[in-house]
Amino acid sequence: MSDTFDAMWAGLAPLGRNRATGGYRRYSWTPADADVRAWFTAEAVARDLAVETDRNGNLWAWWGDPGPDAVVTGSHLDSVPDGGAFDGPLGVVSALAAVDELDRRGLRPVRPLAVTVFVEEEGARFGMPCLGSRLLTGAVTPERARGLADADGVTWGRAMADAGFDPQRIGADPERLARVGVFVELHVEQGRALVHRGAPVGVADRVWPHGRWRLDFSGQADHAGTTRLADRNDPMLPFAETVLAVRRAAAEHDAVATVGKAHVAPNGTNAIPSRVRAWLDARAPDEAALRSLVGGVDIAARLAAAEHGVTLASYQESFTPVVDFPGALRDRVAALAGAGAPAPALATGAGHDAGILAAAVPTAMLFVRNPTGISHAPEEHVDLADRHAGVAALADTLADLTGAERP
Amino acid sequence: MSDTFDAMWAGLAPLGRNRATGGYRRYSWTPADADVRAWFTAEAVARDLAVETDRNGNLWAWWGDPGPDAVVTGSHLDSVPDGGAFDGPLGVVSALAAVDELDRRGLRPVRPLAVTVFVEEEGARFGMPCLGSRLLTGAVTPERARGLADADGVTWGRAMADAGFDPQRIGADPERLARVGVFVELHVEQGRALVHRGAPVGVADRVWPHGRWRLDFSGQADHAGTTRLADRNDPMLPFAETVLAVRRAAAEHDAVATVGKAHVAPNGTNAIPSRVRAWLDARAPDEAALRSLVGGVDIAARLAAAEHGVTLASYQESFTPVVDFPGALRDRVAALAGAGAPAPALATGAGHDAGILAAAVPTAMLFVRNPTGISHAPEEHVDLADRHAGVAALADTLADLTGAERP
Repeated sequence: MSDTFDAMWAGLAPLGRNRATGGYRRYSWTPADADVRAWFTAEAVARDLAVETDRNGNLWAWWGDPGPDAVVTGSHLDSVPDGGAFDGPLGVVSALAAVDELDRRGLRPVRPLAVTVFVEEEGARFGMPCLGSRLLTGAVTPERARGLADADGVTWGRAMADAGFDPQRIGADPERLARVGVFVELHVEQGRALVHRGAPVGVADRVWPHGRWRLDFSGQADHAGTTRLADRNDPMLPFAETVLAVRRAAAEHDAVATVGKAHVAPNGTNAIPSRVRAWLDARAPDEAALRSLVGGVDIAARLAAAEHGVTLASYQESFTPVVDFPGALRDRVAALAGAGAPAPALATGAGHDAGILAAAVPTAMLFVRNPTGISHAPEEHVDLADRHAGVAALADTLADLTGAERP
Repeated sequence: MSDTFDAMWAGLAPLGRNRATGGYRRYSWTPADADVRAWFTAEAVARDLAVETDRNGNLWAWWGDPGPDAVVTGSHLDSVPDGGAFDGPLGVVSALAAVDELDRRGLRPVRPLAVTVFVEEEGARFGMPCLGSRLLTGAVTPERARGLADADGVTWGRAMADAGFDPQRIGADPERLARVGVFVELHVEQGRALVHRGAPVGVADRVWPHGRWRLDFSGQADHAGTTRLADRNDPMLPFAETVLAVRRAAAEHDAVATVGKAHVAPNGTNAIPSRVRAWLDARAPDEAALRSLVGGVDIAARLAAAEHGVTLASYQESFTPVVDFPGALRDRVAALAGAGAPAPALATGAGHDAGILAAAVPTAMLFVRNPTGISHAPEEHVDLADRHAGVAALADTLADLTGAERP
């Protein structure tokens, strides 16, 4: 087991890595994305898995017939800008290694088994996270998805076509979804709850509701040296006030909220900006708290904009309702993944494809311990022993769910 | 006169213009920069002016012998990001049109006359404004200039070499400077003082001391959805507090100060930033006020950084002391440029090559009315009649200073 995991990990590690930052830049439909997709296909084919690309660009590698009532496991291979090595790839490599482990044990699944790779989970390029699973389940319309644009104005439709796929075919895929009996995603933990509990593996209990909003503050570009303060319409000022309001609102609601991305135009040292475009990421324990948080930020931003003679336009780029994973499946996986006692159940503020699929099929998640607790950065980590513990837990789960037996 | 000005203006207008924004992106040593330099050379050669490039890349077009005791006039052709059409080019086109006007009047200068174009006046690409005039006068060392890097890490030395110039030859040029008896720069006004006074042309009285500082806030990139507020080292927060502190400090000192440029890394919606790099542009009526303003901002920024577990490194990128233009020359130019009464004298917060040269040679400036008051943006404007009034004022000034006479 450990041999095949480690070899796969070493093969994937250099793809899309930025040598200057040590982080990954695996954005959908870029050359780095093509590289990791090709890597997955080669690894699946080497295991005699039958690889399909669905109409939305997600990859499926089948052990046995392609459904119905399949047990499906997988994650994603795209990254945030300068992301870590584990967020996404750990679930894909662990799934393939779990297939190897079943094989090593001499087991064959009775229910069909598939390993999946979902596209654009991070939303790093086109702004909407979990786009591949949203399209599959119909949580986003094909029209909206096709029109999503990256920072250079390239749309999802155009980028997908340039990568050799047909964007006219994207959209809800109930026939494919009907083949899925249960979905299990293994993922690196993006916090330190498992460190505190002393457990290498946990299971997901709830995904907090979360969303992304874009805020465009538009003022008037002007000379920084000659324009009196009273004559300015400087969008940087209400933007700054909004950043601080976001933090206050998050604290008030026991939530998390972040302004991690901003674009300033024209972005010259001696020019008052014409526009600051900022993105808000907000997540809260329940939807009422999230609505209250975002509403409070919006009011603060509008007041600050008006005070400075700046206009504000805001857009909801994505929204994911609360997900409570089904309790019976969660407990069954926790029992299989735990050593002696059930694996601990954790709530998380992070969105996942599993959270999207949960609306359509019974779904569970496994988390693997991250000693730094850091994620979306190169410091994200999983110790070798815990990587292997994750594969073992996933293999045990898949063996149980597929009713695997010796042929 | 108006014919040649308008024709030159029309020829220069499309070069380096961004069609999406309507603004100019004429950055040093880029193809757009090569275009405007070639445009200038062709216009000068068409007037039988002898064009030289000095060792720092500044252009000089001579009418008659190249000094000594020359009357020199000119400005710059580079722009801020998405800048207006007039800041810089108005002075260059007006200088060439003033040469035409002297010729039309049948006058020949007795003292030598030159039209100059200084490189990298805005500092938009390499961060230090008035770099060409600073190098010429020795206000910056060649070592420091060669090492200045643009946003892609390309140094001034490398960019200059790639454009076909020898960066090993840059530096103070006392021999060339000794040829200059007086320097006059015509420039669009970057405010509305001339609008309020009802005058098409004014003269410069004082340039406020001013400078640029870079502030690097470094924290820890992490997942926006899973990292507790208490566990964050988010550099966006002290950055935002600093933006607001800058505005307060400017108001306290009757000064102007601006954060017009910022870079966020990695700049992902769902990632807490690892770093926010921001630039402060500050200008005040006197140096004590400027030092107090910048010192106050620095304290506020350090307190905010410490509060959020973020480190702050700050750098002075440039500093220009107060410039008081010599009174006798100023009054002489004001008398020549005014219609009846002397042209009004204005203090300005904007830096100019004239402000740098004033430390080495007698220097004067003419300002031309800008009805919008806006600068460093496409809305920057000068009415046609005022463009011609500016050329007439400059021609009168040059005729007087050169002792021009009929041959």
